[in-house]
Amino acid sequence: MKIRKKKISIIGTGNVATHLAVALSNVGHDIACIYGRSEKSAKILSDKVSSNYISNIKEIPIESDLIIVSISDDVIKSLIQKLNFGSTLIIHTSGTVGMEILKKSSENYGVFYPLQTFSKDKYVDFTNIPICIESNNENNLQLLYEIGESISNDIRKINSEQRKIIHLAAVFACNFTNYLYSIADEILESEGIAFDILKPLILETSNKIISNKPADVQTGPASRCDFEIIQKHLEQLKKKPEFKKIYDLLSQNIIEKHKQNE
Amino acid sequence: MKIRKKKISIIGTGNVATHLAVALSNVGHDIACIYGRSEKSAKILSDKVSSNYISNIKEIPIESDLIIVSISDDVIKSLIQKLNFGSTLIIHTSGTVGMEILKKSSENYGVFYPLQTFSKDKYVDFTNIPICIESNNENNLQLLYEIGESISNDIRKINSEQRKIIHLAAVFACNFTNYLYSIADEILESEGIAFDILKPLILETSNKIISNKPADVQTGPASRCDFEIIQKHLEQLKKKPEFKKIYDLLSQNIIEKHKQNE
Repeated sequence: MKIRKKKISIIGTGNVATHLAVALSNVGHDIACIYGRSEKSAKILSDKVSSNYISNIKEIPIESDLIIVSISDDVIKSLIQKLNFGSTLIIHTSGTVGMEILKKSSENYGVFYPLQTFSKDKYVDFTNIPICIESNNENNLQLLYEIGESISNDIRKINSEQRKIIHLAAVFACNFTNYLYSIADEILESEGIAFDILKPLILETSNKIISNKPADVQTGPASRCDFEIIQKHLEQLKKKPEFKKIYDLLSQNIIEKHKQNE
Repeated sequence: MKIRKKKISIIGTGNVATHLAVALSNVGHDIACIYGRSEKSAKILSDKVSSNYISNIKEIPIESDLIIVSISDDVIKSLIQKLNFGSTLIIHTSGTVGMEILKKSSENYGVFYPLQTFSKDKYVDFTNIPICIESNNENNLQLLYEIGESISNDIRKINSEQRKIIHLAAVFACNFTNYLYSIADEILESEGIAFDILKPLILETSNKIISNKPADVQTGPASRCDFEIIQKHLEQLKKKPEFKKIYDLLSQNIIEKHKQNE
């Protein structure tokens, strides 16, 4: 796709900043400058995207088309509110912080939230990642849409309230899910069984919801109200009271839901 | 792969029975007979695999090389223990029932447990599904290994105790995970947001554990001990007390684990 090349500066060097900088650079945008609290981390990222780097935030080039703030939520508040970028469009990438926090920093502000989990060393293909955009006016929104489209096929206009809901849902679907995987790993490990035996099952479970509503494909002892198995499992977990509590609570909820649907 | 064709009878017409019968038939085994409590369901499955069907269990052809019992756990107990198949190898496909339950039914018995979640209308490729086998002697085990290998690349010798642990771990990794997906769906739905926005995230979360230990890729507010966000999420969930309880319990556990690892 032919893109209109933009000059973009990035505040932050964490996982989101890194993957976003690389994706934007890869499609031809000019990453003008990377700011990092530590010069070292700023240099590492700037090397990846052939940009300048700074560790004094006041040196951020405000003649950029866009400044992306991709730092932790509490730092957004403390750092950014002290700065003024005039009329340069400034956006953050957080799922949980409202857009208005950037109001004092520039006349033009917005949000560019890629809904994905980013790990340091794992390459991420942005093509199908939903990018939630929001801005204080239509012109800025159009620019964000265009930049989003240069890296992804799924750009959505989402307001701050909706974004917070999406982030909350993502905690259940991603963070808590991964925690359940780690419980399964620990249960197997304690009996000397390798976790890899579960991998095809985990992949199939996530693949199922691509074409099914999760509630419609619920399986397992609780969904069958198989109290004998549930009791046996709770006994097996007696040495792991914290896992037992989670097993019990989730099973009770699944049983309750099953009853409602009857 | 060239296979030694076996004559197999199947007791049961549920999801596991169906997918297994189809997979075994597809690679060339002779499905001699399908037994179903209802003649209708037995006929439907037997049509798929070009076999006979019966609804009187006493007509099961005991000259089969193998009889597969793939019915719910409580029915295994009540139905099978009344029958005797002489020396014909009889196996069940359950994750939770010990092997010895089949002892009274034949001199030769075992377990053939495919570790996967099966849905009625979703095609399942067996190639990478781990099949846990167990038997009362080496000859039978060898036969089960051979039949397993005809449909999957991953055949594992697993005893009844290990199998119960694997099944417990699978409840966390599959059934509870799917329930978390359904919570995420409900949270989004209540705000009119389509669940499909989470799909790339869900797929990436499950794909991550293929090459990482789940505990090493844990992300989210709890793993960062971000109490401000956790508090906001709990407030957002105040109209859904059952989800709030799950959010709170899982977050507390993740925080606790994070502390231990520090």
